[in-house]
Amino acid sequence: MAPNTSIAERVEALRQLLVAQKLDAYLVPSEDAHASEYVCECFQRRTFITGFTGSAGTALITRDRAFLYTDGRYFVQAERELDPNVWELKKHLVDPPLEELVNSVLESGSRIGFDPETLSISAFNKLRKALSVQGIGLVPVSGTNGNDMGASSYSNLVDRVWGAARPPEPRSAVFPHLLCFAGESATSKVQRVVAEMERNNVDWLVVCALDEITWLLNLRGNDIEYNPVFLAYVLVKRQPMAQSVTKESTTPMGDLYLYTAEERLEPAAVDALKELGARTRPYDAIAADLEIMVGTQDRVWYDPTHTNCLIGQKLRLAEFQCSEVGPDASKMGTGSRSILAKATPIGLLKARKNETELAGMRSAHVRDAVALCRFLALLEHKLKVEQASIDEYQAAQLVDSLRAQQENFVSPSFPTISSVGPNAAVIHYRPHADSARRITSNEIYLVDSGGQYLDGTTDVTRTVHFGSPTARERECFTRVLKGYIQLEQASFPPGTTGQQLDILARLPLWSIGRDYRHGTGHGVGCFLNVHEGPQMISPRSAAGETPLEPGMTITNEPGYYEDGQFGMRFENVLLVVPKLAADHCMDQKAYLGFENITLVPVERKLLDHKLLTEHEVRWLDAYHERILKTVAPLVAEDPLTTQWLREQCRPL
Amino acid sequence: MAPNTSIAERVEALRQLLVAQKLDAYLVPSEDAHASEYVCECFQRRTFITGFTGSAGTALITRDRAFLYTDGRYFVQAERELDPNVWELKKHLVDPPLEELVNSVLESGSRIGFDPETLSISAFNKLRKALSVQGIGLVPVSGTNGNDMGASSYSNLVDRVWGAARPPEPRSAVFPHLLCFAGESATSKVQRVVAEMERNNVDWLVVCALDEITWLLNLRGNDIEYNPVFLAYVLVKRQPMAQSVTKESTTPMGDLYLYTAEERLEPAAVDALKELGARTRPYDAIAADLEIMVGTQDRVWYDPTHTNCLIGQKLRLAEFQCSEVGPDASKMGTGSRSILAKATPIGLLKARKNETELAGMRSAHVRDAVALCRFLALLEHKLKVEQASIDEYQAAQLVDSLRAQQENFVSPSFPTISSVGPNAAVIHYRPHADSARRITSNEIYLVDSGGQYLDGTTDVTRTVHFGSPTARERECFTRVLKGYIQLEQASFPPGTTGQQLDILARLPLWSIGRDYRHGTGHGVGCFLNVHEGPQMISPRSAAGETPLEPGMTITNEPGYYEDGQFGMRFENVLLVVPKLAADHCMDQKAYLGFENITLVPVERKLLDHKLLTEHEVRWLDAYHERILKTVAPLVAEDPLTTQWLREQCRPL
Repeated sequence: MAPNTSIAERVEALRQLLVAQKLDAYLVPSEDAHASEYVCECFQRRTFITGFTGSAGTALITRDRAFLYTDGRYFVQAERELDPNVWELKKHLVDPPLEELVNSVLESGSRIGFDPETLSISAFNKLRKALSVQGIGLVPVSGTNGNDMGASSYSNLVDRVWGAARPPEPRSAVFPHLLCFAGESATSKVQRVVAEMERNNVDWLVVCALDEITWLLNLRGNDIEYNPVFLAYVLVKRQPMAQSVTKESTTPMGDLYLYTAEERLEPAAVDALKELGARTRPYDAIAADLEIMVGTQDRVWYDPTHTNCLIGQKLRLAEFQCSEVGPDASKMGTGSRSILAKATPIGLLKARKNETELAGMRSAHVRDAVALCRFLALLEHKLKVEQASIDEYQAAQLVDSLRAQQENFVSPSFPTISSVGPNAAVIHYRPHADSARRITSNEIYLVDSGGQYLDGTTDVTRTVHFGSPTARERECFTRVLKGYIQLEQASFPPGTTGQQLDILARLPLWSIGRDYRHGTGHGVGCFLNVHEGPQMISPRSAAGETPLEPGMTITNEPGYYEDGQFGMRFENVLLVVPKLAADHCMDQKAYLGFENITLVPVERKLLDHKLLTEHEVRWLDAYHERILKTVAPLVAEDPLTTQWLREQCRPL
Repeated sequence: MAPNTSIAERVEALRQLLVAQKLDAYLVPSEDAHASEYVCECFQRRTFITGFTGSAGTALITRDRAFLYTDGRYFVQAERELDPNVWELKKHLVDPPLEELVNSVLESGSRIGFDPETLSISAFNKLRKALSVQGIGLVPVSGTNGNDMGASSYSNLVDRVWGAARPPEPRSAVFPHLLCFAGESATSKVQRVVAEMERNNVDWLVVCALDEITWLLNLRGNDIEYNPVFLAYVLVKRQPMAQSVTKESTTPMGDLYLYTAEERLEPAAVDALKELGARTRPYDAIAADLEIMVGTQDRVWYDPTHTNCLIGQKLRLAEFQCSEVGPDASKMGTGSRSILAKATPIGLLKARKNETELAGMRSAHVRDAVALCRFLALLEHKLKVEQASIDEYQAAQLVDSLRAQQENFVSPSFPTISSVGPNAAVIHYRPHADSARRITSNEIYLVDSGGQYLDGTTDVTRTVHFGSPTARERECFTRVLKGYIQLEQASFPPGTTGQQLDILARLPLWSIGRDYRHGTGHGVGCFLNVHEGPQMISPRSAAGETPLEPGMTITNEPGYYEDGQFGMRFENVLLVVPKLAADHCMDQKAYLGFENITLVPVERKLLDHKLLTEHEVRWLDAYHERILKTVAPLVAEDPLTTQWLREQCRPL
């Protein structure tokens, strides 16, 4: 199908395939085969079929209706992007969930098709359980399930609609992440992982999450825009102790298989893998290898939230019975193989940054602050002194270019959000050259941006105003900032989770009956994905599963949005650090707290001084003093930014 | 065995039964057959065998060791009460959990016996799952499982040790809870329950929790000290709509069976049950009835946290195979019957108090405040003016007697905690006449007490000092109070849980590296159990399952304890109320907050003014003004209390 077909035509073409496949509906999740949050273009099937470009959302197309579910970050954006003649928007946590919707639009006995590579085992199990009660089946549709669908690359029904216009799978160069940045060798990392396998008494570890693979191997790539990862799988086989010492070409305690196209590896990456004793296998070979290599008595560890159903099937975890429909059809994860289904040990090892990574993160944030202060100073100057006309898109280009001048810069860490007035209420807004709004002195301007540096990853949001904000805007921003400060200043015992802390950032808004429809904070990789787990600050129960530990990174980013009016957010990156000495704490365990590493001034015009406590004023003055001391010397040659910094950082 | 045997002798006798039963260990939970938190004397088996009198704890006796697990409220008390030559104390959340301990003290293939009536289905499943991995079996030991153990009342091994000295099952009189206090007829309640059964498409509802039964039927008893409940089960059978209208002696939509001894019902209770169309059956008949009445095709709703394993077995949910041991033995809840295993609808209906109940709760708290203010005034007078010698036990008697003078008083709602200095660090301390400590002007005095009134239940803690508290004591108390105020003053959107709010009460202590080892708040019944769910304020994940809703009651009781030194706690009962009008709130949904209904002054001597914000001082002054206005007119004839109130309630 031609690339410039309309969304209506695409959906219609998909419906013809539904009929041919005897399906009543087709499910199109956002994820690739690795449950990635951001996916490369060829896997942006949900975007292709819906027109909605947000990172999160699930589409369901029935023979006569089409639904898109997305979360609070994207309600406004989805309303703007979806063709209302084709798509019905369903709001996560506002509308009834997908499984209830299905019950009202499909009859018992219906068959919902899906591509088993695009659904994680946990997502599948959750959905299957809900649907089976209603007698509705989840039917995997792939080239390998007996349905005559030709080439496996066409097994996804959206891919079949997309046809030849679909971009090819990326093959970016894979290069080593140097020890001076990583702080720990891949060999040491693998040893720690194998020790965890030993402790959990498993023979195999299946690693599907792309950032876990890049971290483990000290490699980086560029398959997914803004995320320095590459398409791959890793299998780790634990060797009995005795064997591992004598055997050649193994790591001290395990065999490691990397599934990715060998030709994309830079020579230095090939050497690094050789030193590690890793074997390289073609990306697609994982499925067949699992069937051959993993013995029926072997105990396998996999992460059900990142392992897709096809892998699950090859591991014999799954029994797909696509011809049957009903409560017991399409069972997964109930095979008799001995399994350990939980997060791999890599996520937590990666989340606890070592001293080299922490130093790199701090350093990258200082350089990032230089870029952002230059940007804000220059933007103000252009608008107010030069009276220049600048729109959101041009401003995004400007901040990206200033960041690119910094040492160790690789790329932005996500698409720069540069938004004015009502556009700032679109939480993940991305300006386009042809529709960008002009920045004026009448409206709030919000910039949320970050960089990938070789030594760290940044993510910072500032909300500013080039004129006189309204009292309402000042009240709301001050409450957002109060929430930020209360969270940043908290001390808490070891074992505390981001779920417990989340409320601290919301309370000042709650007291006027307002809230923000997104989490308060996410982990940040070190020259890795700007969103990383397992830690997060959010009311979601997942945030309650991982206590915050020293060395973890986390953003603190409360916001406030009035649809059609304005949006505001304040975001810094924090490190979890010991805060109160163990000697002075209960149970002799050091209480934890945060070290803020983002160094960009707070917009003073947006403050409502009446609402600030003395403590908060002291916090602001101390923060600005620290910024001035750290950043000003680095922009000494730039009088504009120096003057701006002095102005922004004078005591309240 | 004689009642005055030593703990060591009791454990030794139990070990002889272990050998005879070919068991390697025996599990003794705290609960009765209804998973009650507080149990009547004949079911206090864990206390009998361990000597530990706290409400929560689980004992495990192996052939050569004996362990007691309890939680942070009871660490100090358990250390005092346990014979260290017999018992090893294990601390919940501090020591490794029971299942890990078992792994280290028992070999694979071991058999742990338990009484299926004393373990809920959910507790059993959790434990079985953990133990089966280790190849350790959980073996039900009862009179009905083929083991030749004689009379079923002797089937519990602890009961066999206890022998004739064991108290009989209670048979307190059961009387109606009048409509003027309950605010809703039992018929209406049953109709709402049957409507929930209809919505969930179940045929039967099994009700095991004693407070759910008393609430549903508008009956009260006195089987368990301080808890106005009686031993009973209820079965509700949903009738097809057509049938229910014509049939005699049924409620409009369902058949209700009450399992309790008929002769204990007061005539008015018999009449009330007749009007409701309920049928009375003997307490013990439930097991046989379930086997006979519940059809194999019937769908059954039960609460796995309150339904014991014996009921589970009779419902054919369970297959006990006590002769086998291993991963797959003793499975439960895996039968093919169609079940709905979740909290009954009654818990939530009961938790949302109606207007009559709310008015009763408010009114009972005013009378309760009169009693407590009188007590504190009188105690101060006796100690400081009369120079009398008064100990913790005498003080408890005094507060109980003053409360008993109040209108509608029935009994205390729990054993009065009256504690001085280091005893106040024992969170659930109970003074005894022969060991009570004298109240002096050198130490903190803590009183945590409450009443059962016909129109409501109270629970209040005050910490006072009759001399000059230390700076440390003032700092800690002030932080406890700051936590209380921050929680009480919070506004929050509908859907917020007590798990989210919990941190607000802890934060001021956390900032100096301190915490308290108990939850922040529990629901309070209305002339019912002083602890009721499902709502609670706690970091526990269970607290995250139930959003707070208007009409719910909840305590707010942060504390601080230094073992061997002092303890302090501040506790009020709050009602959840709409706080911010829907018109002014996001999504047009009224934000919620709390109405404090406890009216007893705060000890001003324990305040550290430096730590109080202006807002907190205003809160204190307004609270004291409200107390003076409400309580002073009711003690006008009592110059001592009037004077005391004026002194306590003057502005800071």
